[in-house]
Amino acid sequence: MNDNTTWHYENFDPTGSAIGYRITRKLDEVQSPFQKIEIYESTDWGNLMLIDGAMMLTTKDNFLYHEMMSHPALFTHAAPKRVVIIGGGDCGTLREVLRHPGVESATQCDIDEQVTRMAEKWFPELCESNGDARAELLFDDGVAYMANCPAGSVDVVIVDSTDPVGPAEGLFNKAFYESCFRALKDDGILVQQSESPLMLVELIREMRGEMGKAGFNAFATLPFPQPCYPTGWWSCTLARKSGGFAFREDAARERGFATRYYTAEAHAAALVPPPFLAEALAG
Amino acid sequence: MNDNTTWHYENFDPTGSAIGYRITRKLDEVQSPFQKIEIYESTDWGNLMLIDGAMMLTTKDNFLYHEMMSHPALFTHAAPKRVVIIGGGDCGTLREVLRHPGVESATQCDIDEQVTRMAEKWFPELCESNGDARAELLFDDGVAYMANCPAGSVDVVIVDSTDPVGPAEGLFNKAFYESCFRALKDDGILVQQSESPLMLVELIREMRGEMGKAGFNAFATLPFPQPCYPTGWWSCTLARKSGGFAFREDAARERGFATRYYTAEAHAAALVPPPFLAEALAG
Repeated sequence: MNDNTTWHYENFDPTGSAIGYRITRKLDEVQSPFQKIEIYESTDWGNLMLIDGAMMLTTKDNFLYHEMMSHPALFTHAAPKRVVIIGGGDCGTLREVLRHPGVESATQCDIDEQVTRMAEKWFPELCESNGDARAELLFDDGVAYMANCPAGSVDVVIVDSTDPVGPAEGLFNKAFYESCFRALKDDGILVQQSESPLMLVELIREMRGEMGKAGFNAFATLPFPQPCYPTGWWSCTLARKSGGFAFREDAARERGFATRYYTAEAHAAALVPPPFLAEALAG
Repeated sequence: MNDNTTWHYENFDPTGSAIGYRITRKLDEVQSPFQKIEIYESTDWGNLMLIDGAMMLTTKDNFLYHEMMSHPALFTHAAPKRVVIIGGGDCGTLREVLRHPGVESATQCDIDEQVTRMAEKWFPELCESNGDARAELLFDDGVAYMANCPAGSVDVVIVDSTDPVGPAEGLFNKAFYESCFRALKDDGILVQQSESPLMLVELIREMRGEMGKAGFNAFATLPFPQPCYPTGWWSCTLARKSGGFAFREDAARERGFATRYYTAEAHAAALVPPPFLAEALAG
């Protein structure tokens, strides 16, 4: 190993744990009106994007998150045509959404244009669908965007945001979920990243509570591995106005596009919470 | 948080990543003839056991590893009666094995008695089946133990060891696997912890290669979350002399004992490698 490597650690106070990477150099940094974005080169994980010091993604493992934020919801909805992504400025979720040929339009609304500019530069593979005719990239306030969405116009809303502090704080409360509820059709699905199933279950319960106050009454929290996030184990939570989370297994199996983590079996298993999680969510 | 906490980091050179914990104090330390064992108290993960500076287990997340090292193999074998655990000195795997009422005897052979003594003191919940009449605890060389096992006497061998450096090095080569092959009945199963599926696939391939040279010809690598090990994502590899890895799903579903992670669905999903892993193992 060359002598210029250093170790960058990120301490996660809420989980009492830390994750670190061996870094070769800082590649870029920009202070946007909203947050500081830094790009590092690592020895084993490709490039890293940090926002206000918090790890957002690595070249090596982002496929886990992006596939699980999109495919479970899109294979659960009977025929998703209109998708909205709130946040998601790195464009990785957008790319996965657009792999579904039935999707007619996908709007990504991230408040911070600089996230997308940095992704284009340092994670170009995530941005390869940005030119798709079905894609719309907005740089605006996601809370306002959802509040102004025509009622009953959206099939799937994906909230692909940072944690509930700073710019993303407004994406984790009843008012925002009410906008999502109103914008979604009756069979629509809301998806949100929902933190560590092992260590942050209270946060998942609070999120489901706020979603419930907004009218959603069916929930599923799907765990998946995500090495670069606290505890290395993450989750997304799906919410519906009614109905369940049975998914189009045959379509998932014969999906006609490549995935690196998502399979029909992984989807099915993620729908069955480990007993400790089922208990914690019920408790 | 009180002012006496410190962060303990462990850098993993082969993965270029690190994991850390917020520590309140060191509880214990012993230098055995084989290795240094340290016990720390953490703010969020209960007690931690480190061997030669490497994280072995935490109170909070060891259930993932112990359940996945035992239940998939035991529900794959048609009727496991005689189980041998090589390593496993913390006794957590032994406890899980003994949850299966059909098991008639389970021998745990760890070279280092001090690991078990420290587990009894600081992880007593893992040792609660040590007094089971079916349990035999040996403190001896696992390589020699397997070499001396009567041929065709064992249903399941579980290699629950540290990484392939230091005392455990001899548990990852053809000679050792030949002993396992000989000791196993024709329908027997060998299980071994097999490192990170994301970052250490080369090691899994080598392990399967050595197992193959020893005569095993069917393999399955099952990934599972394990926050305290490098990348937070780990695996075990099952090997058989012949046949496949279809498991007794009904028995797994109606298992009659509590698990915190293992479910029939998690087992089924773990048998279908994520596409990236299938490709890497085939490549």
